[in-house]
Amino acid sequence: MNAEILSVGTELLLGGTVNTDARDISLALAELGVNVYWHTVVGDNPARLTECIYRARNRADLIITTGGLGPTCDDLTKQTLARAFDRKLYLNEDALADIREYFAERGRSFTDNNLRQAYLPEGSIMLPNDCGTAPGCILEDGPVRVVMLPGPPRECVTMLRNHVMPYLQKLSGAVIRSHMIRFFGIGESAMETRLRSFMDGANPTVAPYSREGECWVRVTAKGANEAECEALMAPVIEDICDKMGDLVYGIDCASLEERVLQLLQEKNTSLAVAESCTGGLLAQRITDIPGASAHFLGGVVTYTEDAKVRLLDMDEDLIAENGVVSMPVAAKMAKRVRKALGSDIGVGITGWAGPDGDDVGLVFVALASRGGCFVRRLQCGHAPRPRIRLIAASNALDMIRRYLTGLDV
Amino acid sequence: MNAEILSVGTELLLGGTVNTDARDISLALAELGVNVYWHTVVGDNPARLTECIYRARNRADLIITTGGLGPTCDDLTKQTLARAFDRKLYLNEDALADIREYFAERGRSFTDNNLRQAYLPEGSIMLPNDCGTAPGCILEDGPVRVVMLPGPPRECVTMLRNHVMPYLQKLSGAVIRSHMIRFFGIGESAMETRLRSFMDGANPTVAPYSREGECWVRVTAKGANEAECEALMAPVIEDICDKMGDLVYGIDCASLEERVLQLLQEKNTSLAVAESCTGGLLAQRITDIPGASAHFLGGVVTYTEDAKVRLLDMDEDLIAENGVVSMPVAAKMAKRVRKALGSDIGVGITGWAGPDGDDVGLVFVALASRGGCFVRRLQCGHAPRPRIRLIAASNALDMIRRYLTGLDV
Repeated sequence: MNAEILSVGTELLLGGTVNTDARDISLALAELGVNVYWHTVVGDNPARLTECIYRARNRADLIITTGGLGPTCDDLTKQTLARAFDRKLYLNEDALADIREYFAERGRSFTDNNLRQAYLPEGSIMLPNDCGTAPGCILEDGPVRVVMLPGPPRECVTMLRNHVMPYLQKLSGAVIRSHMIRFFGIGESAMETRLRSFMDGANPTVAPYSREGECWVRVTAKGANEAECEALMAPVIEDICDKMGDLVYGIDCASLEERVLQLLQEKNTSLAVAESCTGGLLAQRITDIPGASAHFLGGVVTYTEDAKVRLLDMDEDLIAENGVVSMPVAAKMAKRVRKALGSDIGVGITGWAGPDGDDVGLVFVALASRGGCFVRRLQCGHAPRPRIRLIAASNALDMIRRYLTGLDV
Repeated sequence: MNAEILSVGTELLLGGTVNTDARDISLALAELGVNVYWHTVVGDNPARLTECIYRARNRADLIITTGGLGPTCDDLTKQTLARAFDRKLYLNEDALADIREYFAERGRSFTDNNLRQAYLPEGSIMLPNDCGTAPGCILEDGPVRVVMLPGPPRECVTMLRNHVMPYLQKLSGAVIRSHMIRFFGIGESAMETRLRSFMDGANPTVAPYSREGECWVRVTAKGANEAECEALMAPVIEDICDKMGDLVYGIDCASLEERVLQLLQEKNTSLAVAESCTGGLLAQRITDIPGASAHFLGGVVTYTEDAKVRLLDMDEDLIAENGVVSMPVAAKMAKRVRKALGSDIGVGITGWAGPDGDDVGLVFVALASRGGCFVRRLQCGHAPRPRIRLIAASNALDMIRRYLTGLDV
């Protein structure tokens, strides 16, 4: 099945919004083994939208639109698509009831504009919106299927996961399952070189992904049922993990930080962090995950030398003798924040995030435990400031997960 | 001039990367008064890329491609476009010299793959890459202009700003200038209603933008020269600022945090922050800005009650009597972190970011100065966790900018 994602919204063309919906839908379709061959973005313009729909219909089996389902006069997706597929719009009573309930729950008043949102193309399947007012729908027209989703990312992704993916799963006949193996400590090119032989597989398939400082592979199998898919994937996953060893930080976890919190939970270990150049980024990433407070006690952002002295009782002489960006300073920050918060492990990060500084990209990350202290020296080179901070925080998380899984830190 | 942005890269269609290039190029073209009517994303596939180029050429005056200029065998943009426009590729000596120098500076070796990057279509204008190896180019074909940019966002945006925008400015004959007026404390719909009459203007134009918790308008004028543009915009900007009053937090600043750092600098005021539910996000946003350490001393992430006691010497009884999410606790956090870091102003944030908690979305943000303490109560409602944290941090920044500009906090 080939798919095109068609995002509707002038705000996307003005550069006001970045198109995360297309990325999220692509990730989801990849899990189902659906090939996405085009992303198109068009404005709130019926003529151009119609042109795009005709083209999509000629080249894709599955068209997923986002946006244009709202209550304002700019919201034109349903009318335009209904006309393109020669369908009338009718008032869907279930959709209407959902919208009334949404407003009642929030003590807000329902307007005529919101009434428009309950109109759907004839013959379409209504998709409930579990976090907003606009229902989506699926319109089937011969061999072509058109799924209309709301634009706001949370509404779009929720409707996609809750209602569209089950529909697509049923269509494919076969069952498709996948697992994501996640690596830290290797670059994308090197990973693809090492796993080259796996990437030619037909079933399961192995596809590479990369993001700042990390990379991963999705292993996808197609079978008659879930057990068959798992049986096909298991040996491939085992072989990949053997080949990549310590570089594997997790399977199917959403991020390094999520993996770290899982491990802190499993090992009943508490954590505190002391950050200088990362300025709160490490704590923010950890606390992004609900339930972090069970094991993350808190931390300090000691952005100046004086702050290090005041909050961590650091010795000014130590800083003067070694330089603020040095191994002894990182180690002391980690040990002191552990004491200050009373945690099992402490992390300290000090470095030059740039663009100014003696040695931009030089960062020391330390992990202190009851048993001792480990320090990692990073040289991030001529990278932009946000990247240096991200790499430093990710390395801290990697050191924690290695420590908690008994690997060399 | 109508433009299409054509992004080349299978990783975009797999959902591995989100297309920030299209957003950044759209923002830049909007500054120049160029209409972007389409974004298209296609994979590393010559046939589909050719089809997309032919369509773009028929409907747009300006085509900006991103991606596919790298050294691997998947990088096909130049060859495919050269073929579509019936041009040969030739070795550009300046490009070759630049690439050699890039590798020499970094002590890395140059390979044959990198040599491919120095080949450009006949008759095209070479665009130097100030942060990577792949030069871009501009190919002019009758009424159509094709700009080829690298995919990696930093390389793309740098080449666009340094080399493409001056080229486009010259083309347009007229000079176009714009200013961005930024608001905090009003929603997008309300802003558009208040500024309705301005949005119908022809020169200058006024276009609305919104992002999580903020909104802004871009005022754009076209004239014979820069002074004429500024003269056209000045009364409109003044009227908008009059109408929006305190809600205006800055003009042409990149963010609330950037504005706050400017003001801390102007007023020679130092800042420290104590965060609970925002978990480091406020400190991270502030320290994202280079030079933050001149006025941002640091902070604490007191994620548990015990951390509040240990790091801020908070009174357990105060927490017990009022609840950890309360006005007195927020105020005390702000006062205590001010003392602990020795800063002029301190901020304290305590709230329920969810999804668990007594009253999800309830947040107290406090600002303590020598003169007193201000506390703002927020109710973010049924918003997702990341949004509640973001709104809380943004409100803290808004309180600081109001305090520093002598407004009601």
